[in-house]
Parts: sequence; C-alpha cells; structure tokens
Amino acid sequence: MHILVTGAAGMIGRKLTERLALDGALHGVTIDKFTLTDVFPANAPPASAAVDIITEDLAAPDAAKKLIDARPHVIFHTAGVVSAEAELDFDKGYRSNLDGTLALLEAIRKAGDGYHPKLVFTSSCATFGGPFPDAIGDEFHLTPHTSYGTQKAMCELLLADYTRRGVLDGVGLRLPAICVRPGKPNKAASSFYSSIIREPLAGREAVLPVDDNHLHTHASPRAAVGFLIHAAGITREQLGPRINLTMPGVSCTVAEKIAALRRIAGDNVAARIRREPDPLVIRITDGWPHRFDAARARGLGFVAEQSFDEIIRVHIEDELGGVTA
Amino acid sequence: MHILVTGAAGMIGRKLTERLALDGALHGVTIDKFTLTDVFPANAPPASAAVDIITEDLAAPDAAKKLIDARPHVIFHTAGVVSAEAELDFDKGYRSNLDGTLALLEAIRKAGDGYHPKLVFTSSCATFGGPFPDAIGDEFHLTPHTSYGTQKAMCELLLADYTRRGVLDGVGLRLPAICVRPGKPNKAASSFYSSIIREPLAGREAVLPVDDNHLHTHASPRAAVGFLIHAAGITREQLGPRINLTMPGVSCTVAEKIAALRRIAGDNVAARIRREPDPLVIRITDGWPHRFDAARARGLGFVAEQSFDEIIRVHIEDELGGVTA
Repeated sequence: MHILVTGAAGMIGRKLTERLALDGALHGVTIDKFTLTDVFPANAPPASAAVDIITEDLAAPDAAKKLIDARPHVIFHTAGVVSAEAELDFDKGYRSNLDGTLALLEAIRKAGDGYHPKLVFTSSCATFGGPFPDAIGDEFHLTPHTSYGTQKAMCELLLADYTRRGVLDGVGLRLPAICVRPGKPNKAASSFYSSIIREPLAGREAVLPVDDNHLHTHASPRAAVGFLIHAAGITREQLGPRINLTMPGVSCTVAEKIAALRRIAGDNVAARIRREPDPLVIRITDGWPHRFDAARARGLGFVAEQSFDEIIRVHIEDELGGVTA
Repeated sequence: MHILVTGAAGMIGRKLTERLALDGALHGVTIDKFTLTDVFPANAPPASAAVDIITEDLAAPDAAKKLIDARPHVIFHTAGVVSAEAELDFDKGYRSNLDGTLALLEAIRKAGDGYHPKLVFTSSCATFGGPFPDAIGDEFHLTPHTSYGTQKAMCELLLADYTRRGVLDGVGLRLPAICVRPGKPNKAASSFYSSIIREPLAGREAVLPVDDNHLHTHASPRAAVGFLIHAAGITREQLGPRINLTMPGVSCTVAEKIAALRRIAGDNVAARIRREPDPLVIRITDGWPHRFDAARARGLGFVAEQSFDEIIRVHIEDELGGVTA
C-alpha cells in the first residue's frame, strides 16, 4: 500500500506518519511506500517502507498532479495554514486551505483511469460559529466566524461532492482542540489550552488568560492520529452521504483541567499556573464552540480519551518519556 | 444609484430588472444607471435610467473587474447555471457557480478605495440534503446532494466571510422552488411544479409525474423579486453574522395545488392534468427538502404568498394579462 500524507511536516502529519511507520500496515495491509509532502521539509520516519519526501506547495501548478501520478491508495490530507495565519493573511489562507485542497481533488478527478483513492481530510470545529446550543449536534449548521473555518467548511462541501460523484472515497474529520500540543507557547488564542499543562509539567510557569469556568472540548494528538487511521477503514456504506463528521473529545472547564493536573503531578506543578486575564483572548475563545455531541462519530467507532486525566497521561507518555519535572 | 444585475438574462434577473425600472428607485433612492450582465444578451428594460448591457462570462479574466470598475452601489448576483446543467457538466457548473462568484467577490476586495457595495446573492434550498426533519429550521446544516447545491453552499460561506471581513455587505437568499415559471416544460425534474399550473391555464395538457401527496414549498417569481429588493434594504445590524437566510414560501401537496387550480379556473382546466408516474422524477424529488420554517426571514420582513391560490393568481396577472384559456 502506498500512502500520501500532505502537511507531513505539521504536528498531526508527523505523528501520523510515525505511527503508521511503526505499525508497518494500515488496517492489515502492509505499507510499502510513503509519500510525505509539505511546504516545509518533512522528516523521514524510521520505516522499512520506501519514503519519498516532496517539499512543495500543493496549490503550485502541477504539484498535486505529480503526487497523484504515483497513484497513492490512501491520502491523509492534513495540509493547510492555521487559523491565526489564515486570518492575518487573506490570500495565503485561501491559497493554502482552499486552493490546495481543490488542486488535490482536481488532480484525482483528472487521473481518468478509474483511480479512486481513500481521502481522509482534517477539518476543524472552527467550521462552527455561534450562537451555539449547549451541545452541538451532528445536524447543526456551519457558520464559521473565521476565514480558516470558512475554508475548511468549503473543503468539506467539495469533498462530499467529489465523493458523491464517484471521484474518490472521502471522509472529513472535524477535530476538536488538540491538547496537549508539544512545542512552545505562541500568539494563538488557543495556545493556553496546551501551555497550562505542558509548561508546568516541564517545570516552567504558564499564563492562564481566561476564567476558570471556561469550557472547551479536547482530544490528544494520539487520539487525533487514531481518528485519522480509523477513518481510513470506514466504508462508504457506513458513512452514507454525510461524510463529514464531528469528532468526539473530552469537554471540561479550565478548573477541571487544573484539578486533573494536580491529581497527576501534584500541587507544586499545578501552582505554576499564573492567572492573568486577557480580554482579547477571553473574547475570542468565548466565541468558539464549547461542547459537541459527536454521536455519529462515536457510533462509527471513533474513540477519544475518557477524561482530561487521560489526556495529560498521554502527553507525559508520548512527549516526556513518562517523566514530569 | 447604480445597480448591477448579474444573470440579467435569466428569469429572475429579467423580472427584477423590469420591476426596478418600473419603480425607478430602490428603497427611496433614484436609480440612475443599470448594468446588466449575463453570458446571454440581456434585454434593456423600459427605464429612464442609463442601461449598460455587458454580455460576458463573469469567470472570464477581467470580466468582474470591468464590472466593478464602475463601482455599482448595489449588486444583485443571480448569475449561474441551473441544477441539471451543473450536474451534467461538472466543469461548467463549478466555473459558472463558484468561480464566477469568487471572481466577483475578489474584484470587489481588490477595488482598494473603500468601495463597500451591498451584494444580494440568490442561493437555493438545493443547499439542503436529506434526511430531513419535518420542517427545516434556520440552524439545519447544509449537506447538498447535487453539485449545484454544493456550489451555492460554498458561495454562501464565501459571502459570509467577505462580509465579516468588511469587503462588502452581503446577504444570501435560499429561494424555494419558484412557481409558476413562465416558458415551456423542460427536462428538469422540477419542471412539473410549474407546468401542471401553467399548461392547463394555457389550454394545454400537463403531465404529473409524482404522487398527489408529494409536498413542496413554493414562491412566485414576483415574490422572489420581492425578496431580492427587500434584502437590499436590510442592514448589517439586522442580519448579524448569519447573513444567509432561508426564504419563506407556501408548503403544499400536489393535491392542494390542483384543488387551488380548480377553485380558480374550474374543473375543465384542472382536468387537463394527466397522471403518468415517472420513477426517476419521483426518486429525485423525494430527495428534495419539503418544508421550511424560515422563521428568521419572516422575522426580518420577507413576505411570500399566503396560499397556492395566490401563487396561481400572480401567474395569471403577471404572465397571462389576467386571462385564462
């Protein structure tokens, strides 16, 4: 089996590739080739399979065609610029998130030899925009409040239409906020979701810019990779015409997260969180969806963590070698 | 005021232009210029205003820029290919319905001199795809089952994002099935909605391909024009961030339509309907949405007919000079 990963240098793309290389197979079929593409150079995973690394912009002329000429059997399409970047740079956001996806879909459509790959697309819960019900059901409309969410919602529509017309076998996954992200705090409004766990565990202070009762829904990077792999094994018959799914996650308040951190790592670690309310971050994150039903995804066998404690433990295992500071 | 109408040679575009020319003003402001564009030559309405007719494809290079260079104050964007054509010709559908809209929005964004027009966009209830609740509420998701519906839903998302970012002041109207359409029966699955009224009233036989209890929602061409004009007067504050609205209409069964025709034109006219079930038309139309709440639109003052009798009377007045055969 030949697997193409777009956005392979990104956090999800990298972790997905590592996991697939470790497994050596996808749903029982041996992986004999990876093609890893991104605008940044992807790292080759330790794999017995062949690895082809292509550093190029999907939206560039012929870039998608070259990738599809090799007829990958399964495509994990995780490429795209993030929310804040798409908001700051209008042209770049539409080019990367919309034009890149369209180029990929069009290259597949124009293959013209019966080629019909599985395509797993990472959408986002940023496709939702308030006002919201208490929990967002599977039939709630997409009215995004960002260009990023708009681009993802448009790609969901394209993916469903190309699937319906028999061009490919697509499935779109609306990921909840991924937590705990490795790396450093950054300017993104969502940065604190991860940093209030990651930084204290690493012996550093973290700033909490929102209220303790702020509620959000999370899944770990490991769970997100699990969603992508699970999605590749779902049949068209199981999915039906509605191929874009809200993924499950753990809904909890900041207070509950801090309590989980205290249970796992102790008072000293939890004490490294400093409260410093930021009106801008409060305003932005209050506009985000808080909680999802994700009934369809759960029914189709997608599994997230059961508690925020579990999300913290996954981070300690996967990023800290089981050790906390 | 300078008004641009795209799709000006289409049924809605033509009737809108005629109405505006007759009124001579839009929401109290005198219209001094019309620009009418379409891929087919539009007719000049009898207007005291200047009329510029431009026969060109909106998606052609620089076509949108040339239209926007004249800085129209209000744009009625009704251009696009219809559902059946977009389904038969994949490239043409995306080019006309998506690329054409994107070209128009981009031309406005790139004007760069504070230009900020009102743009009224004709979307469609084909953006909805089953399974449906009994009545589709304003927060029901868009999961179209056609490429046409996909393209319209994508344009709704674009329009909302360009509006949110301050490029223009957009409003999208999901029109119900327009009935009674003038013209002749055609191959469209929806053709019978109009032909079972229009043909008997003109002394001709009509074929009814579906069951008498088939339910659908309709508004007259006159009501559709009314929606467009009303939308041009709605403020950003009234609309809020959710600028795409499902329009109201009359929900009724085929049996109720025939009863209305009998009340208005007599048994002889109603007897000109011949039942000839068509499994394909039954399958297609059963997949269409049947009924809408349209609570937001009604709350914002959009008004459709109150009964199917009224829809028939509008047709007799507007198309038959008040006379039936």
